[in-house]
Amino acid sequence: MSLSLSDSRYGRSGIRLLKLTRRGDRHDVRDLTVDVALEGDFGASHREGDNRAILPTDSMQNAVYALARDHAGGEIEEFALELVRHFLADVQHAVRARVRVAQRPWGRIETGGRPHDFAFARGGAERRIATAEGGRDGRAPLVEAGIEGLLLMKTRGAGFAGYLKDRYTTLPETDDRILCAELNAIWRYGWPELPYAAHYRQVRQVILDTFAAHDSRSVQHTLFEMARAALEQVPPLIEVRLRLPSQPPRPVDLRPFGMENTGEVFLPSEEPRGLMEAVVRRDDLG
Amino acid sequence: MSLSLSDSRYGRSGIRLLKLTRRGDRHDVRDLTVDVALEGDFGASHREGDNRAILPTDSMQNAVYALARDHAGGEIEEFALELVRHFLADVQHAVRARVRVAQRPWGRIETGGRPHDFAFARGGAERRIATAEGGRDGRAPLVEAGIEGLLLMKTRGAGFAGYLKDRYTTLPETDDRILCAELNAIWRYGWPELPYAAHYRQVRQVILDTFAAHDSRSVQHTLFEMARAALEQVPPLIEVRLRLPSQPPRPVDLRPFGMENTGEVFLPSEEPRGLMEAVVRRDDLG
Amino acid sequence: MSLSLSDSRYGRSGIRLLKLTRRGDRHDVRDLTVDVALEGDFGASHREGDNRAILPTDSMQNAVYALARDHAGGEIEEFALELVRHFLADVQHAVRARVRVAQRPWGRIETGGRPHDFAFARGGAERRIATAEGGRDGRAPLVEAGIEGLLLMKTRGAGFAGYLKDRYTTLPETDDRILCAELNAIWRYGWPELPYAAHYRQVRQVILDTFAAHDSRSVQHTLFEMARAALEQVPPLIEVRLRLPSQPPRPVDLRPFGMENTGEVFLPSEEPRGLMEAVVRRDDLG
Amino acid sequence: MSLSLSDSRYGRSGIRLLKLTRRGDRHDVRDLTVDVALEGDFGASHREGDNRAILPTDSMQNAVYALARDHAGGEIEEFALELVRHFLADVQHAVRARVRVAQRPWGRIETGGRPHDFAFARGGAERRIATAEGGRDGRAPLVEAGIEGLLLMKTRGAGFAGYLKDRYTTLPETDDRILCAELNAIWRYGWPELPYAAHYRQVRQVILDTFAAHDSRSVQHTLFEMARAALEQVPPLIEVRLRLPSQPPRPVDLRPFGMENTGEVFLPSEEPRGLMEAVVRRDDLG
Repeated sequence: MSLSLSDSRYGRSGIRLLKLTRRGDRHDVRDLTVDVALEGDFGASHREGDNRAILPTDSMQNAVYALARDHAGGEIEEFALELVRHFLADVQHAVRARVRVAQRPWGRIETGGRPHDFAFARGGAERRIATAEGGRDGRAPLVEAGIEGLLLMKTRGAGFAGYLKDRYTTLPETDDRILCAELNAIWRYGWPELPYAAHYRQVRQVILDTFAAHDSRSVQHTLFEMARAALEQVPPLIEVRLRLPSQPPRPVDLRPFGMENTGEVFLPSEEPRGLMEAVVRRDDLG
Repeated sequence: MSLSLSDSRYGRSGIRLLKLTRRGDRHDVRDLTVDVALEGDFGASHREGDNRAILPTDSMQNAVYALARDHAGGEIEEFALELVRHFLADVQHAVRARVRVAQRPWGRIETGGRPHDFAFARGGAERRIATAEGGRDGRAPLVEAGIEGLLLMKTRGAGFAGYLKDRYTTLPETDDRILCAELNAIWRYGWPELPYAAHYRQVRQVILDTFAAHDSRSVQHTLFEMARAALEQVPPLIEVRLRLPSQPPRPVDLRPFGMENTGEVFLPSEEPRGLMEAVVRRDDLG
Repeated sequence: MSLSLSDSRYGRSGIRLLKLTRRGDRHDVRDLTVDVALEGDFGASHREGDNRAILPTDSMQNAVYALARDHAGGEIEEFALELVRHFLADVQHAVRARVRVAQRPWGRIETGGRPHDFAFARGGAERRIATAEGGRDGRAPLVEAGIEGLLLMKTRGAGFAGYLKDRYTTLPETDDRILCAELNAIWRYGWPELPYAAHYRQVRQVILDTFAAHDSRSVQHTLFEMARAALEQVPPLIEVRLRLPSQPPRPVDLRPFGMENTGEVFLPSEEPRGLMEAVVRRDDLG
Repeated sequence: MSLSLSDSRYGRSGIRLLKLTRRGDRHDVRDLTVDVALEGDFGASHREGDNRAILPTDSMQNAVYALARDHAGGEIEEFALELVRHFLADVQHAVRARVRVAQRPWGRIETGGRPHDFAFARGGAERRIATAEGGRDGRAPLVEAGIEGLLLMKTRGAGFAGYLKDRYTTLPETDDRILCAELNAIWRYGWPELPYAAHYRQVRQVILDTFAAHDSRSVQHTLFEMARAALEQVPPLIEVRLRLPSQPPRPVDLRPFGMENTGEVFLPSEEPRGLMEAVVRRDDLG
């Protein structure tokens, strides 16, 4: 039987890393998780167990640590780009390299009303994401950035009505529900060498402003408005991908106990389960 | 600014469900998790908040429960197909529907040396997977099946040597390591209406036999052998996708304590982190 | 065979609850998890299956929701006390009732430089804890409060040296390590009806100030200083229990790559595993 | 202010370990997680940062690995006892040492209808537990064993009726519900040097037999019967502690869709949340 092999990819994920930068008494920390993936001509290792084209994933992890010393203190997009350049130079059989860096938040402890120089507390589940991907075609590597895992909730300005009903529909229409969704947004930059941190903060703020101000008729509606606002207000963006797993907290029925529940007591959903996703792109890109 | 919308998808994931089938005193249970996703022309809901094409995900969940009563007691592939047919008929704006069913294992408790009729214990993390996907093009729906989350280990018959070395390589070559990887395999059937349960058991056994018997030179090598064996021995299969996140347990260095560790004490890896994946396909499909 | 039954306890844990308080356009949310446990004379249900003394845990959950409407908008200590009173009045066979309320943080989204009225983002893993426990002995219920799950890190001012060494000791002594530990602190109040929120904030700040300023010689050392500072500076406290699971991030050895690592690149520990705990109590309590 | 320090305990938890035993081509694996805790006079480390009595938890971890080579291939109770002896001899300031070993199941892959010699698949969430605890009072160390995390379900032979009702009770009485609970059982042996593996298997089987055969009127009822059966049938046991977090899967209401649900479709509970626990002890112990 003749067998074809495709989409062969390998690498190392979940490389954990803490980078400490000391500026005198003032310290900065970056808490990073790095994923490395190589695509290429690895057929001999699959078919014959010939490993000559295979760099051990253990060596990838070592390279991440070694390069972190000089390159992980800046923006994570630049660290991802540096790693892509390294792995393309290092592994001749790789035709593409992809690196993803996720940064977990640590905030400074406030003491005496001021942020402390070297004492930190871990922040929420939100992660800042950067990915870089490059090949051997001479084109500039692709850079994307994003936010993952930020749980948002608004308790006004959201409804859901006028929808399709079938024989299994029991959900009541409402113009006042709690909208609760996890924000996962990845955006693509149209050109390289940007002030990534400033752009990250700006896109994040635009998305949050839209979430708060937007009069939401559905999760889909809010999703599109977030993407539109980001694309309109931040010129280097050419594409925004959004995934908003959601489930509105359900009002608890207190009538069996002779009580009314006028939007006061809700059962939160542990795992957001409504899944809404879309890609929004500037059309004028030629 | 003109914006295009693509890859718009919505649905409900993580619908949990226990189906109990009573055959006199003998009971059967199926512990299922269902994901539903629709693709289609949902632009109006995104752009204008017009929900007329949107069936609430709450209604999807209700439909899964209602259809489970009569359709979840058989093979999960058939339940997935039934749900795809339902959603395509139900939601006119959907151009494709995709349903994924994951089944968690429950085994019968042994009492008096025999499997009990109605007492069960939950099995391991392994899940049996079925997906069905269909559209409006008149073609038969696509059916895939698989295994996810089964952690495998072999303590002989695995090595890793002859690989590419760079300046960051410290991993020693070996012809005797512990191979430990999580099996995630999805295979596609070439035609419909198969004895799915029998095929599932056969593919699973072929993969496990290969894992045990194969003289592994790398995770890639083992991955390909598993796929090859499945495609060769189970005719309805036309494609196998494998993902084997892996990390060999590392021998603990006991030399600082004046002791030798001749392959006896290892540090297991909590999270498999080497990521190997590939798609293997029969070439003679025309 | 004669069998004694003791420590019989039952209840419901993990009751999830979102309480929304509307003050015009300004909304407040509390995201709570409630555990209820009753102790008492439940022997007949155990020995004979006679359930007359057993209130279903489902009814406990309902009571938590019903009482949440009017009592969950204030301090969690008061909600816990209200629930203890309710269950003691409700279940005559219960000799003690214990309620624990854990509050997850939601912060207001900043828009236009100001905290938004009704849009929120979930905070970190830190939870504010309150427990109340009471019986039928006429004494005032016990009230405790605390913090759980707050991961702290300081990158200066911590060492570990002068310790006991045995044949298995390989850890180098250091006067400069990263101290990283999860804060779990529960304190007991000496008298009831306190301004609980103010005390919570004050104890939390005292502990964080101590963590940052303290010159740490060990986790134990820091633990005691935190407790001491809280007991000295916040008079209603009579006891502080601290648990600080910890593991310092380990410097990555870059020497195999011809590089030095002067305290810049560390491997963070996913799960804190050093376990340090102690109870510190004011001695002058008579 | 004079402060007392009590319940001071420290140690290392979550020490992960894989022990491989080779008997020719036939291999055995043990996948263990070890927790070590010492109690004693550690006041100087707390109050003055004087670490002379403190063995680093890193050294504890090293000792576990070193002793695992020769002692982790047998019963986990014996490995726990060996570690207790080691730490009491090693750390003079420790007045008590406690070691807990949890074993995760790995089963042999079946190939050609036979269990394979060196290929394994990870089993379920069930863990076998052993704890040993000893001090300097000359008494034999305490040995306990148990099972944790085994999810059990029976779909016949369980009811819940005749219970206390209050104004918040909405649960219907039933003589036919699904009983689903996680088994957590720890038992204490009355004397040392037992055939631990045989006793473990016997107690486990007695508990499962009781779960299956017992006509359950409540979780409490089942809990007591399990403990009674174990104490009656396995003489060396003097005490059984059971914790059965439980929540019956709830029937899904299909009436809104014009369908009946005669005990066929249920919503499983992800997290068991009813909490039932008790200690049952032989009374004739003097």
